[in-house]
Amino acid sequence: MAPTVLAVCGRTFSKLLNHGHRNLAASMSKRAVSQVPLGFVGLGNMGKNMARNLLSKGHRLVVYDVYPEAMEAMAKQGAITAQSPAELGEQCDRIITMLPSSPHVKEVYAGKKGILSTVKTGSLLIDSSTIDPSVSQEMAKLAEAKGASFIDAPVSGGVPAAEAGTLTFMVGGNESELRAAQEILLCMGKNVIYCGGIGCGEAAKICNNMMLAISMIGTSETMILGKQLGLDPKVLNQILNVSSGKTWPSEVYSPVPGLMPNAPSSNNYEGGFGAALMTKDLGLAQNAATQTGCPTPLGSLAHQIFRLVLNHGLGKKDFSVIYQLLQGSMTK
Amino acid sequence: MAPTVLAVCGRTFSKLLNHGHRNLAASMSKRAVSQVPLGFVGLGNMGKNMARNLLSKGHRLVVYDVYPEAMEAMAKQGAITAQSPAELGEQCDRIITMLPSSPHVKEVYAGKKGILSTVKTGSLLIDSSTIDPSVSQEMAKLAEAKGASFIDAPVSGGVPAAEAGTLTFMVGGNESELRAAQEILLCMGKNVIYCGGIGCGEAAKICNNMMLAISMIGTSETMILGKQLGLDPKVLNQILNVSSGKTWPSEVYSPVPGLMPNAPSSNNYEGGFGAALMTKDLGLAQNAATQTGCPTPLGSLAHQIFRLVLNHGLGKKDFSVIYQLLQGSMTK
Amino acid sequence: MAPTVLAVCGRTFSKLLNHGHRNLAASMSKRAVSQVPLGFVGLGNMGKNMARNLLSKGHRLVVYDVYPEAMEAMAKQGAITAQSPAELGEQCDRIITMLPSSPHVKEVYAGKKGILSTVKTGSLLIDSSTIDPSVSQEMAKLAEAKGASFIDAPVSGGVPAAEAGTLTFMVGGNESELRAAQEILLCMGKNVIYCGGIGCGEAAKICNNMMLAISMIGTSETMILGKQLGLDPKVLNQILNVSSGKTWPSEVYSPVPGLMPNAPSSNNYEGGFGAALMTKDLGLAQNAATQTGCPTPLGSLAHQIFRLVLNHGLGKKDFSVIYQLLQGSMTK
Amino acid sequence: MAPTVLAVCGRTFSKLLNHGHRNLAASMSKRAVSQVPLGFVGLGNMGKNMARNLLSKGHRLVVYDVYPEAMEAMAKQGAITAQSPAELGEQCDRIITMLPSSPHVKEVYAGKKGILSTVKTGSLLIDSSTIDPSVSQEMAKLAEAKGASFIDAPVSGGVPAAEAGTLTFMVGGNESELRAAQEILLCMGKNVIYCGGIGCGEAAKICNNMMLAISMIGTSETMILGKQLGLDPKVLNQILNVSSGKTWPSEVYSPVPGLMPNAPSSNNYEGGFGAALMTKDLGLAQNAATQTGCPTPLGSLAHQIFRLVLNHGLGKKDFSVIYQLLQGSMTK
Repeated sequence: MAPTVLAVCGRTFSKLLNHGHRNLAASMSKRAVSQVPLGFVGLGNMGKNMARNLLSKGHRLVVYDVYPEAMEAMAKQGAITAQSPAELGEQCDRIITMLPSSPHVKEVYAGKKGILSTVKTGSLLIDSSTIDPSVSQEMAKLAEAKGASFIDAPVSGGVPAAEAGTLTFMVGGNESELRAAQEILLCMGKNVIYCGGIGCGEAAKICNNMMLAISMIGTSETMILGKQLGLDPKVLNQILNVSSGKTWPSEVYSPVPGLMPNAPSSNNYEGGFGAALMTKDLGLAQNAATQTGCPTPLGSLAHQIFRLVLNHGLGKKDFSVIYQLLQGSMTK
Repeated sequence: MAPTVLAVCGRTFSKLLNHGHRNLAASMSKRAVSQVPLGFVGLGNMGKNMARNLLSKGHRLVVYDVYPEAMEAMAKQGAITAQSPAELGEQCDRIITMLPSSPHVKEVYAGKKGILSTVKTGSLLIDSSTIDPSVSQEMAKLAEAKGASFIDAPVSGGVPAAEAGTLTFMVGGNESELRAAQEILLCMGKNVIYCGGIGCGEAAKICNNMMLAISMIGTSETMILGKQLGLDPKVLNQILNVSSGKTWPSEVYSPVPGLMPNAPSSNNYEGGFGAALMTKDLGLAQNAATQTGCPTPLGSLAHQIFRLVLNHGLGKKDFSVIYQLLQGSMTK
Repeated sequence: MAPTVLAVCGRTFSKLLNHGHRNLAASMSKRAVSQVPLGFVGLGNMGKNMARNLLSKGHRLVVYDVYPEAMEAMAKQGAITAQSPAELGEQCDRIITMLPSSPHVKEVYAGKKGILSTVKTGSLLIDSSTIDPSVSQEMAKLAEAKGASFIDAPVSGGVPAAEAGTLTFMVGGNESELRAAQEILLCMGKNVIYCGGIGCGEAAKICNNMMLAISMIGTSETMILGKQLGLDPKVLNQILNVSSGKTWPSEVYSPVPGLMPNAPSSNNYEGGFGAALMTKDLGLAQNAATQTGCPTPLGSLAHQIFRLVLNHGLGKKDFSVIYQLLQGSMTK
Repeated sequence: MAPTVLAVCGRTFSKLLNHGHRNLAASMSKRAVSQVPLGFVGLGNMGKNMARNLLSKGHRLVVYDVYPEAMEAMAKQGAITAQSPAELGEQCDRIITMLPSSPHVKEVYAGKKGILSTVKTGSLLIDSSTIDPSVSQEMAKLAEAKGASFIDAPVSGGVPAAEAGTLTFMVGGNESELRAAQEILLCMGKNVIYCGGIGCGEAAKICNNMMLAISMIGTSETMILGKQLGLDPKVLNQILNVSSGKTWPSEVYSPVPGLMPNAPSSNNYEGGFGAALMTKDLGLAQNAATQTGCPTPLGSLAHQIFRLVLNHGLGKKDFSVIYQLLQGSMTK
């Protein structure tokens, strides 16, 4: 069902791999028994699952998180704990970070006890946080000044894919760095999409999610309007899907309860991709649009609408709950 | 490429046909030699092609249009001309109308010399205009009072599909009437989608087109933002298409010049679906939303944005020209 | 060219009209004892108060309403009741109508038992309903064909001003007809604004109310943002009022509870101008914008936002309740 | 709790301050001959006029700007020039800054050769730049750590008021610091509004300007719609001004060419407040709204619309040029 695009931009990922690694399987097993452990910072809902998958693939791991409990839980699974990101810079030459927002990333990399205060020349730093692309670029510059490489590799797929090790990574950075990162990334996910230079992974993610938010609200409006005009929601959804009104939500993730048994909308909007997270991504998109002077009228209105969703206490519901907010008492 | 959905709502159209017509081919050839001609009103860019296809399939045709030149051109192709819609009501028992807007439909059916002033009991009236669903319902009631049947059957596919006889019809009315209409419709198109009761064809069309307008503007915003953030448009488009940001425009009708050689955007936004027509459909959607009290924030903003496109003199360009309006002097 | 504002806000009509009428008081008392009664159709919350004020100024009144109870209540105050608008056309040469929407106006004037079926040559028809300006123009044409005059004279001020006889009338039609109407209007209100030709009263009202809705939402957003940024709402409101951010709501009708003791916001958003009525007016504005091809992005979004207010069950609250909807659980 | 508006619009500051300062004039003349010069950073279109007014009131001035020409021009008028902001920190105990954006302010205060690297205990730092309130708060903290005071005092009135010395300052910070600042501010402006704690001056300014942008677009839409509906623009404007649709633009700054001879709209939208500056302020408002989770649907759409204005090459025109953008070819 899920697309397995290992690399886009015309070149297949396996091809890309061929230059770099004659034998990926051999390379992976070799690296997995390397004496140098991987570093991992950020053991939240996403990060703890990603770290666990790295451990389960045979990697040794040094971890850090601001919450000691989170580190202890990971220690029980075999990880070594550290007292600061700086310790990871000393002990590891490949570090993955998974943090909530731009300021956290700045702190973990460029703070007083940050990774960059101790990082070794030649190290590879992989940031999977969803943040402002310009912050990724800033971190990459700082890393470069220390002789290290930084790539942005935000993910899609959410907690379920993090658990199952089936995340999709959107990667920005030099292609050569991507090759070095691929083995690690494929321990946590199954798709790696090369998006371009540093920051392009983040850019691709926030562009995609802005479009998704627009599609979701648009599909909700369309389905509500159709219903009020007397159309059977099932019929209308089928018509959209064979017509130019087709969207990803209309195909696999309808906001209308009952249309798709596995969609969050059919489960009281539980699970899925939280409205609060979507709102955060829309905020990143709007910041980027402001920085670059791009007009995004629908993206901007989508952001506002999701902010309203949050103010109505629905931030933890799946983002398709916008259908419910729009309907309001129409459903009663 | 185009979806060939003969009937949705779970039942395939061919199945539907099986009850009604044991042998569609036989039935078609039989009807085609019927002595009672079909009526056709509205010989504009769409209508003249639809009428020509009916003629070419062996139907006799009585036509009417307010422009005598339009009738004369059709007469040269073998059609009989009339002086008013009322004449068609007298001479034909199956009439197709293809008109620009609701007031034209009201005039042609319910005006002084309208079809309904003379229509025979048992006649089948097929309106392919894109109009307000409530007007379709009004006409259907008036027709019913005269013992005639009225169905709404707006089309998608535009002038190219009208020429090629490959239109898709979205039909509202009784299913039994659909069976009677199918043979005629399939002379002008290749897909017939049954949408529900009277007005549901119109409703489906305006819902679909509202969603399409939203997708097109959203895709334009997304592509502009991505470009400004340093993403290669081709790469971003590929990423969207394997991700949740996929839309119909990103798949087959990109607004970005050069991405898809056959899309209007690669041909200076010529051809395709005119922005003025999209604006009209969005106006119908907004009227319907107002009548039914539906909140459609993105649909409404899309309407306003396309109105701006028109005010900037771009109404005859393909509606993907919104990409250009948003960019403005950014491209220079 | 120059605006002929016959009376506005606090300036009395008689002063302005001194050139036109040497002795307005005399004229009024003379007319008030005329043997020909006035007609009045529509005895809802607004109409019943307006009718009562006409009675109290000495006018005889023939009334009609679809609800017999409404007529009976008015009969107890001295009005004569009729069985149809047509009876008023026979008995009265000056008729005022106050109806909920365009279709009601069409029915009361142009319906089978409508005023125009019996209206006498030279009659003056005054419609105070808030409706589509194009319907006013349509009614005026029909009236003209019968030798009668029709003017549009929608009101502002709401039920309190209707009760107190202090309504403001925005009048469209010929100036000569306005002079004939002024005596009647000043029995129900204190300001008469001449807006231009037929339909211009309606046009002015819906333009004003669209701007008001935009100001109210904008002021709400501004006050919420300021509060979140640490500004004292009282201080921010004062700053707006001495700056370029001044609006009518910021001056006299703040949506922020507690800022203005007499504003509906300080009384749980009770009283005032109902959100449902504002939504109706915004719908008229959007219809007019669509008919004339005007881009109104903020007006359109305001319409959508108020529709959301209605869907959240707040339609009967004062329209400043938008402040509460925007805040949502922020207040909790 | 009660707002302490020290001076607003036309009321002189000295009147309001009589309780605080028995003899403001005496105080001013004494300070003006102080041997310690004032510092001034940022000699752009605004700053150079503000600095000149300080010189003309008898203040000695040490100035800095990244453009040497700008400093030289000021030197000719009697100012002393410096090589870096740090020099001002050494030489002056009261420094005013007038810079284009948040990053500039950060650099000038907290950069390597910034003011805070040398600032003396007890110094008063006044930032009149329009920036993110959270940056003001950040600078204030850094200043406090050095024993200095920082207040935000953005202005309104634009270049003409800067030239004439009639600016309005919106001040955030401690009231005691405001008293210390007032003498300096009143050399450059005539109104000082105390808005609250640090950052509140910025907050008030961006709130006001967001509301202004909304009013301006709303007024433009309203005037275009009215015109299309047949209303005389002069009449409609008068009606708005005596009704609830009144806004600051409708009263003194109409976007409609010809209505107000002195408004930029009547001078081909030259002069006034540039659309690019308004867009910048709307960006600050949106950043603040995102940081605080405030829904601002109209403010956000206004931002997008002005971004479109910029992309259409109209950034240097007065912001009322939105009227022209909305009309597009409607005017042709």
